[in-house]
Amino acid sequence: MSSSPRAFRLIISCPDKPGIVAAVSNFIAQQQGNIIEANHYSDLANDWFFMRHVIAADSLPATLDQFQQAFRPIAEQFDMRWEIRDASKKRRVLLMVSKQDHCLSDLLYRWKSGEMDFDIPCVISNHEDLRDYVEWHGIPYVCIPVPRGEKGKQQAFAKTDEVIAKHRPDTIVLARYMQIIPPWMCERYPNQIINIHHSFLPSFAGAKPYHQAKERGVKLTGATSHYVTKDLDAGPIIEQDVIRISHHDSIAETIRLGKDVEKSVLARALRYHLEDRVLVHGNKTIVFS
Amino acid sequence: MSSSPRAFRLIISCPDKPGIVAAVSNFIAQQQGNIIEANHYSDLANDWFFMRHVIAADSLPATLDQFQQAFRPIAEQFDMRWEIRDASKKRRVLLMVSKQDHCLSDLLYRWKSGEMDFDIPCVISNHEDLRDYVEWHGIPYVCIPVPRGEKGKQQAFAKTDEVIAKHRPDTIVLARYMQIIPPWMCERYPNQIINIHHSFLPSFAGAKPYHQAKERGVKLTGATSHYVTKDLDAGPIIEQDVIRISHHDSIAETIRLGKDVEKSVLARALRYHLEDRVLVHGNKTIVFS
Amino acid sequence: MSSSPRAFRLIISCPDKPGIVAAVSNFIAQQQGNIIEANHYSDLANDWFFMRHVIAADSLPATLDQFQQAFRPIAEQFDMRWEIRDASKKRRVLLMVSKQDHCLSDLLYRWKSGEMDFDIPCVISNHEDLRDYVEWHGIPYVCIPVPRGEKGKQQAFAKTDEVIAKHRPDTIVLARYMQIIPPWMCERYPNQIINIHHSFLPSFAGAKPYHQAKERGVKLTGATSHYVTKDLDAGPIIEQDVIRISHHDSIAETIRLGKDVEKSVLARALRYHLEDRVLVHGNKTIVFS
Amino acid sequence: MSSSPRAFRLIISCPDKPGIVAAVSNFIAQQQGNIIEANHYSDLANDWFFMRHVIAADSLPATLDQFQQAFRPIAEQFDMRWEIRDASKKRRVLLMVSKQDHCLSDLLYRWKSGEMDFDIPCVISNHEDLRDYVEWHGIPYVCIPVPRGEKGKQQAFAKTDEVIAKHRPDTIVLARYMQIIPPWMCERYPNQIINIHHSFLPSFAGAKPYHQAKERGVKLTGATSHYVTKDLDAGPIIEQDVIRISHHDSIAETIRLGKDVEKSVLARALRYHLEDRVLVHGNKTIVFS
Repeated sequence: MSSSPRAFRLIISCPDKPGIVAAVSNFIAQQQGNIIEANHYSDLANDWFFMRHVIAADSLPATLDQFQQAFRPIAEQFDMRWEIRDASKKRRVLLMVSKQDHCLSDLLYRWKSGEMDFDIPCVISNHEDLRDYVEWHGIPYVCIPVPRGEKGKQQAFAKTDEVIAKHRPDTIVLARYMQIIPPWMCERYPNQIINIHHSFLPSFAGAKPYHQAKERGVKLTGATSHYVTKDLDAGPIIEQDVIRISHHDSIAETIRLGKDVEKSVLARALRYHLEDRVLVHGNKTIVFS
Repeated sequence: MSSSPRAFRLIISCPDKPGIVAAVSNFIAQQQGNIIEANHYSDLANDWFFMRHVIAADSLPATLDQFQQAFRPIAEQFDMRWEIRDASKKRRVLLMVSKQDHCLSDLLYRWKSGEMDFDIPCVISNHEDLRDYVEWHGIPYVCIPVPRGEKGKQQAFAKTDEVIAKHRPDTIVLARYMQIIPPWMCERYPNQIINIHHSFLPSFAGAKPYHQAKERGVKLTGATSHYVTKDLDAGPIIEQDVIRISHHDSIAETIRLGKDVEKSVLARALRYHLEDRVLVHGNKTIVFS
Repeated sequence: MSSSPRAFRLIISCPDKPGIVAAVSNFIAQQQGNIIEANHYSDLANDWFFMRHVIAADSLPATLDQFQQAFRPIAEQFDMRWEIRDASKKRRVLLMVSKQDHCLSDLLYRWKSGEMDFDIPCVISNHEDLRDYVEWHGIPYVCIPVPRGEKGKQQAFAKTDEVIAKHRPDTIVLARYMQIIPPWMCERYPNQIINIHHSFLPSFAGAKPYHQAKERGVKLTGATSHYVTKDLDAGPIIEQDVIRISHHDSIAETIRLGKDVEKSVLARALRYHLEDRVLVHGNKTIVFS
Repeated sequence: MSSSPRAFRLIISCPDKPGIVAAVSNFIAQQQGNIIEANHYSDLANDWFFMRHVIAADSLPATLDQFQQAFRPIAEQFDMRWEIRDASKKRRVLLMVSKQDHCLSDLLYRWKSGEMDFDIPCVISNHEDLRDYVEWHGIPYVCIPVPRGEKGKQQAFAKTDEVIAKHRPDTIVLARYMQIIPPWMCERYPNQIINIHHSFLPSFAGAKPYHQAKERGVKLTGATSHYVTKDLDAGPIIEQDVIRISHHDSIAETIRLGKDVEKSVLARALRYHLEDRVLVHGNKTIVFS
């Protein structure tokens, strides 16, 4: 919905009970809001309710602030976790990469062509390799090498966190960053760090998933995009996909085929995230795609 | 949602304007209805609005009739085309077949195993071939041969319509019936006759689509399920899918591969239809899947 | 390839070295054999060579026996593991089931309609539920209950093995049999027992894979057909596939969607196996599909 | 097979008769050639035979020329249309674009990253828009505007042909060029011009296929890569794929989703072409993928 009119997005999750939809719909109608898109989901197993509205901003006499103030009593009545966002306010997405550039390149194309709408405050890498390419796009490139030892790693991530703090991103994308993010950093940015793992998780977590996949002889290879938590490759899954491979595909071929899946899975996951379509509950996601 | 509790389904389409969602949600809340599932869609290009609610019947003090009565003023206010259906009331689905039995067999399995919930008043065929198989399921089998000449055809379809009228189906499924339904019959049952065509329409309409596909050298073969209108293979599409084929697949192989797609596409289309997920507008469908 | 003329299939695997293809092609040409289909694969990583030929039987003056005799010197020269099979000789496939009948029903349809070409000496089940349905097809049904205790299980599998021995199947298909085959039985029928597991292995091996999948929040659910070895759900994979699921699919919906994948994956795996397209090497398969 | 050793590719098509495989295999063995990859296909309906071999160049004492000379008698004996190519000799691929850059960008990434192995002598466009981007890659950019009138068009294509002649490409890729190539030019480069059409052909040939698709209400949108002939969008199909769309996808969304399919279909088609995997016969292709 790239070319949609200015809009607010109202995202809600709360314990399920009768009357939520009516209360929210009434409120929007009273505010004279035009609903462009609406999704609900009742998780019957956990008695939890999820809702996403896109409301035409031009139809609302109220400002975002006024709208928020007016909504607060309803939110309190139903114990809602909620958020109202101005869809026209671009999110700041900080990218982290290593040497592999297929996901980076794919995201930069979608960003540059306007297919996806976000700002990139900077790209952080543990290598210098992609500096020229990134800077050609007019994006700052910060190289922070990550040495092998524990102490060097600590210093590298302390420095990384400084750079992140300075650029105030809303979202951090690990576009094949290949380093394990320390637990304290995972906890500092909950549901804000998006990773792409090159397997169909939970199969083949950890290192060299394509080699693991060939070793096991699977007939499909996949990719998984998920929020990063302190448990490696075990955070809430946003999006996954697979592609068929065959005995005659070498490791090199498998990697090549897999790259295309990684690119599209990460791009879809980031798009869902930026459009506020992903609601996290426990270790799972509701994706209103 | 096969094992769902007793439910009503409220299906609405009307000109789009502000306040519809609020009015409907309020109404449901006033009736103390618990919403199990809700879908909206605003067709911005045509200013038309579509909505489907599933409401837990046990949460409603009102009967279906009372609920309908109470809803009528809202429906009139917004010029709605609408319907409330008791989800527990099984639809009557009359099947029509020729000699090919893969779709029939697939549907009978889903029916027999309870995977799909409907009644089959009878199976009509223009051949005797499948009588034993159908009757083993305890389903009446009516054979009405369709001769080649125009007059014979007219008599056959007059007879067919008599049998249909007698069995009062809600839905007629052409599970590879292979005869062209006369226009008057198409018009008598609008959006009630579901066909499966063995190509990815609009490619390869008409006779022998697999042969047409091989002739053109396409790399995927498909199937399309659509409502039957008097324009051959041109009615509103409900569901489609494809499967990869290769130069080394003969016509026989292509037919074999295609059958599996036909089966799953028809089964999905019929499921959507029976669950009131398909809203027809013009020559297109909105499918709340 | 269903309606192909009478044919021999020559299946070869051996250490890779120059001259194999020439030697085999020459031999076939000297025997005046018409090659209908040919596949080679050189596993460069393991220096192993795999080959499958389909030869028109009518083009050969020799009988199968004479052809085998004549081929033996070449096989010895290249240290081949090899086999020549008469494609017109139907394989005997014994089916084992529990209570779930979706895979059974799918295979019986493909068998009955002639889509797949094999004999079914009998169906073994640990329950009585499917007796009527199987016997209607004219297939013997043997019920061998499997009790919970270790001793009861031993007796049940001893009995099962007796029944198998009596019916001399070439292939045993566990069409959702739901019992763990004891190691001694796995070893007695190497690469002859085909299982369908209702997950995308290696994810979610063992019990209740659909529940495991929902618990982890994956976005696709799958099925895997593999040869049974004494390591549970870890034998050589023949075929896999997946289907997209969503947060709004309950466990019941996930199971329903998964069943269609199980059916098609098992049917494809069995077809590959029956057409001698599957060559096992170590714990992996080469599938000339 | 990007990282494969130096290799020759022997591509053959000829009337089918016994002895071809033996003659060719013998020849390769006599030349001491190591076969890395081999594919055959007998088109039984048309009595035509197709074959592709990849032979390790280092295993051959002969040069490419000597190998060709030696092979000639066999080729004549069997009336072969044939070709031997040095796989290490990069093909020259001239790209033609209009304003849309998604396919261009995708191909340039695969070229720049070494994922696909070819040279780009120049990019021709009828607009200036993409000059900077192309030249940043170090590739010459030639802008030849194509005016609306017949005479202007003739001049533009005469000029285009001059530029092509000067750069001597082996292959011309219309990466969303959006102009109809005149018949004389189609005939000058038979099976050398590859187009990407943004529909699942033969559906929605001609202009604005995404609009046509939305209008018809199809549930999948696709892309087709084919060799250009003088019949618009009707040349031999190399590769196709589809993606699911829904009623809620606007034209803009459909276009966005389709772009990803266009990119991957064109990239696969070009890869097959460059690896000599595509054999054209009549208006169809055999693709040894």
